[in-house]
Amino acid sequence: MIARSQKHWTADVAELLRVGPGFRLAEVDPRATPGYDKDKVQAAEDLAAGAVQLDEYQERLFARSRVESTDASVLLVLQAMDSAGKGGIIRHVVGSVDPQGIALTAFKKPTPEELGHDFLWRVERRLPAPGYIGVFDRSHYEDVLIGRVRQLAPADEIERRYGAINDFEKRVADAGTRIVKVMLHISPQEQKERLLERLERPDKHWKYNPGDVDERQRWPQYMAAYQTVFERTSTDHAPWFVVPADRKWYARLAVQHLLLEALEDIDPQWPAATFDVEAEKKRLAAS
Amino acid sequence: MIARSQKHWTADVAELLRVGPGFRLAEVDPRATPGYDKDKVQAAEDLAAGAVQLDEYQERLFARSRVESTDASVLLVLQAMDSAGKGGIIRHVVGSVDPQGIALTAFKKPTPEELGHDFLWRVERRLPAPGYIGVFDRSHYEDVLIGRVRQLAPADEIERRYGAINDFEKRVADAGTRIVKVMLHISPQEQKERLLERLERPDKHWKYNPGDVDERQRWPQYMAAYQTVFERTSTDHAPWFVVPADRKWYARLAVQHLLLEALEDIDPQWPAATFDVEAEKKRLAAS
Repeated sequence: MIARSQKHWTADVAELLRVGPGFRLAEVDPRATPGYDKDKVQAAEDLAAGAVQLDEYQERLFARSRVESTDASVLLVLQAMDSAGKGGIIRHVVGSVDPQGIALTAFKKPTPEELGHDFLWRVERRLPAPGYIGVFDRSHYEDVLIGRVRQLAPADEIERRYGAINDFEKRVADAGTRIVKVMLHISPQEQKERLLERLERPDKHWKYNPGDVDERQRWPQYMAAYQTVFERTSTDHAPWFVVPADRKWYARLAVQHLLLEALEDIDPQWPAATFDVEAEKKRLAAS
Repeated sequence: MIARSQKHWTADVAELLRVGPGFRLAEVDPRATPGYDKDKVQAAEDLAAGAVQLDEYQERLFARSRVESTDASVLLVLQAMDSAGKGGIIRHVVGSVDPQGIALTAFKKPTPEELGHDFLWRVERRLPAPGYIGVFDRSHYEDVLIGRVRQLAPADEIERRYGAINDFEKRVADAGTRIVKVMLHISPQEQKERLLERLERPDKHWKYNPGDVDERQRWPQYMAAYQTVFERTSTDHAPWFVVPADRKWYARLAVQHLLLEALEDIDPQWPAATFDVEAEKKRLAAS
């Protein structure tokens, strides 16, 4: 009960952020900090404390998978508009645990080979093995987000995909993977500031893409596509969480907590020795 | 010139650790700290300072590969006897940089599919792409270490492999990869203590394998196999470094430095903008 014992939340943050019936993205304030009433400085301390918890959970999950037959893994799916902070989550939340237990995939524009297969083909290949925390930086949801906004596929194909995603994620969840789907929600004003910073700093130019402004001009269409995604694919076995992300420190703390809860749900224990400990001590002493 | 400006070394540590002509593994003291005359507490501070440098280098390397055509990457090969600290290097040195720029592979006992191919087949598939720091936790060297000690292949096949490795690594280096090969060198006494600790702590049992004691009993054969590896495969394009590892803090600091030197040799610069910065500022402002 580590995550639920985190004292810094004023409410059940997972419950506050989970997309349930009647959810309206338009009603979420990207600057809000649901369940947290402290400031950025305190948040950094709380994040560091959470990192220690996450680290132990991750090691237990990994350890068990090395010794026992287990199917448990975690999959964090990150979706967002440009500059919303996916990279910061990976660096500051995921990056706080042992890289040996992380399976990270950044999905790019599909290759010709990938386009020759169903849209879930490349995703299936990157699912985390038991014992791992998988992280998707973008995902199959691009195929119903930019895919929808940019009409990269026929309307009936886009329509088919929502059900295909639900069936796919059900199978993955049934196979032992805790799926945590996160949309980092920033405001268009905040995005403008962040993109401007990328333009003003030579060491940030590489993160800027003129295409970002093109996508930005379709903001309402993207928000509508996200709303549809939430209505169609936030399920009990793979819920969506919309995390206000104008304040990076809040988003990191919240996503860390969602990971902690997923691991707490698995509750991995240190595996028992598969050998006679006392006999091994004697063998070792004699060696 | 970041790495070479590191003030805490008393000598050129890479030079001290590099395997050159006449190298004798038997003459290396695993408790020594070549080029470093401070203690564990100071080493932790120096490691943290080096992590900041490594972080910036890694980001520059990655950034450039996103924007420009470049072939530069780094490959860290880690070999060692059990419990020598490979995992700690990955966690505390590699783990200090952004996981998005790391490509980590832990090579296990070959699968039947892998055994159906030449021993370098599975290695080739895991080489880092441009912009990445690849890390091999064990490697193709297992095929001339345990492969030799346990006679897993005929003697003439083992013999063939040294040349094949040199040709392979030459091709990889010519393609732009800085190869840094590290053997973490512990003493049998230190290994005994570390294995005993794994037996005494239930949260460490999963790291213990009774087979470790079997391998331990072949220590002299392994050291002879390493000696042959060093003589046959420490080349200008892919040198070996033998890092004394009885003191974990020294090994981490030394490996971090070797990575820093490899990156300094590449000397990646922030890529120039591929767009008109002022024009983009106007487009953004109008959006």
